[in-house]
Amino acid sequence: MVNMRDVAHRAGVSIATVSFVLNGTKPVTAATRARVEQSMADLGYRRNVVARALASRRTHIIAMAYPALEHRFGMSTAEFFTSAAEAARKEDYHLVLWPVGNDGVELRELLGQGLVDGVVLMEVQLDDPRVGILRQTGTPFAMIGRTSELEGLSHVDIDFDATVEEAVKHLHGLGHRRLVLVSGDLDDPRFHAYGPWVRTEDAYRRVTAEYGLETVVLPCSDTTRAGQDVTERLIREYPEATAILVLNEYAALGVVSALNRMGRAVPDEFSVLPLLMVPETAALTDPELTMMRTPGPELGQLGTEALIRQLEGADPLPPQMVPAKLHPGGTTAAPRA
Amino acid sequence: MVNMRDVAHRAGVSIATVSFVLNGTKPVTAATRARVEQSMADLGYRRNVVARALASRRTHIIAMAYPALEHRFGMSTAEFFTSAAEAARKEDYHLVLWPVGNDGVELRELLGQGLVDGVVLMEVQLDDPRVGILRQTGTPFAMIGRTSELEGLSHVDIDFDATVEEAVKHLHGLGHRRLVLVSGDLDDPRFHAYGPWVRTEDAYRRVTAEYGLETVVLPCSDTTRAGQDVTERLIREYPEATAILVLNEYAALGVVSALNRMGRAVPDEFSVLPLLMVPETAALTDPELTMMRTPGPELGQLGTEALIRQLEGADPLPPQMVPAKLHPGGTTAAPRA
Repeated sequence: MVNMRDVAHRAGVSIATVSFVLNGTKPVTAATRARVEQSMADLGYRRNVVARALASRRTHIIAMAYPALEHRFGMSTAEFFTSAAEAARKEDYHLVLWPVGNDGVELRELLGQGLVDGVVLMEVQLDDPRVGILRQTGTPFAMIGRTSELEGLSHVDIDFDATVEEAVKHLHGLGHRRLVLVSGDLDDPRFHAYGPWVRTEDAYRRVTAEYGLETVVLPCSDTTRAGQDVTERLIREYPEATAILVLNEYAALGVVSALNRMGRAVPDEFSVLPLLMVPETAALTDPELTMMRTPGPELGQLGTEALIRQLEGADPLPPQMVPAKLHPGGTTAAPRA
Repeated sequence: MVNMRDVAHRAGVSIATVSFVLNGTKPVTAATRARVEQSMADLGYRRNVVARALASRRTHIIAMAYPALEHRFGMSTAEFFTSAAEAARKEDYHLVLWPVGNDGVELRELLGQGLVDGVVLMEVQLDDPRVGILRQTGTPFAMIGRTSELEGLSHVDIDFDATVEEAVKHLHGLGHRRLVLVSGDLDDPRFHAYGPWVRTEDAYRRVTAEYGLETVVLPCSDTTRAGQDVTERLIREYPEATAILVLNEYAALGVVSALNRMGRAVPDEFSVLPLLMVPETAALTDPELTMMRTPGPELGQLGTEALIRQLEGADPLPPQMVPAKLHPGGTTAAPRA
């Protein structure tokens, strides 16, 4: 392994001079710098990343904090992650995924004082203990998602109001008047204050009230099986429903497969419209799902940009709210007569 | 920020003594150590992780290298990742996901000399450039998957031979004699030397020959759409087939939905048996898929264990080959008369 001593020897300078060149701690003449750099190139010297981190307090590594052991790492999540990784790469940063728990204990352990330059926070809770830890440790961060208190916090998120408005408008326009929302399960302790579920339910209650529609909400975990079970309950308890909005992607797959198995034709008897979904998942059902398409590619990129702007001392990115957009498919149509 | 000088001052010792306590570089008396540690506790001193990494060459962070921008991060992948993260946590390590490309360029950049203690390599190619880079840099690593040359390499993998044997035996036992394998698309440059696809095809050719069956293999990308398209081709070109084995999970969903759409009853007219699948995906079709269940939870854990044993200087974990096991479902039955 080539070290600074070797570089100094070959360049005919002191080790301190090599250090000045590497760390910019004192000015050196252009000629000396050129000699040192040539020597490094000749010897194939690669700076020790840790030493460089100590010198500059910068590693150019950023972490996406995702509670992968508590929340499912689904195909939507993968979109956020890969678009964030791509955005980081374009700006010459490396993004890694940290599966740290929502309580912030591991986050605190891992942050230490310099392994990563900053954090993109995912799966944000309304009152998120991780935010306090990031602030205490002075770690630059941006949220994909929102806490209740947002003062001074860099964030981007789904525009849940606009998403729910467009979804209800679409179904109402087709003639549906009896809707049911299959929501998240807010009684699940892992999700009780999970922003996307709380905000979607709030928006749904507001929008159905505005349209003068009855507000029916059924809780459901985000698994195919739970979606199948809730569909049986829905048909038993709300037989007059003609359209089902589904908050979660795997639950939506369960809703369609259960209707198929029960011989309830989609979309002739029931329209199904997921509120957070990616095309790859939508293609898994028969017929393919009409969906509100999760803006994961946009938000992964924007969240990373918001963080990198902080790290580079650029103008902050103003908060960005991006709605899921209606994406055509085969599961919505006019209601049965 | 509290530093070593503050700790030394409060403890009434030199900075060098604090350093000896922290880094174990020279022995100190128990009384001095206790005074220094008390002083650190009183002041809330937290060691600089980077400095500790430099001192001990250990960060207790390990990376799972996954080419997330080239390969799909599907439901099976998520199982490998979460079980690896859990296994690491149990051993007091943190596992992060590195979306580094398959060519190894980013891997080399990121490895540097100390940010991670070791690497779990995923999506291994038969001749994988990342292996050479890990060896050159002296980075401890374990593979989930296998290169062609395995001399001295720590690895765990799916036992593709046993998996294919059990799958063919199951269908043959039901009475099927005309099978088709819907394989991966090895012409896709991202996958041309991708171990799981190559090994499954090889095993399938061997096993069908042993059973005296015709060997029919159709290439197919891992998407629902591709699975639907290949099914149309299959019915056109091999109308006498009664059973379809499918290598990839999303392609398998497409095969079943295409058969349903064409009015070809599953399993009465066609048996369908995926070779790599997780229950969550299997539950999406109607009927639910019989499958060979991917041993992701076992392999994520074993691959991490193999790496951590190296890091801890424990006895090496011998190579582990874990077969996918037959998991009952509704898509296999005796062939049509």
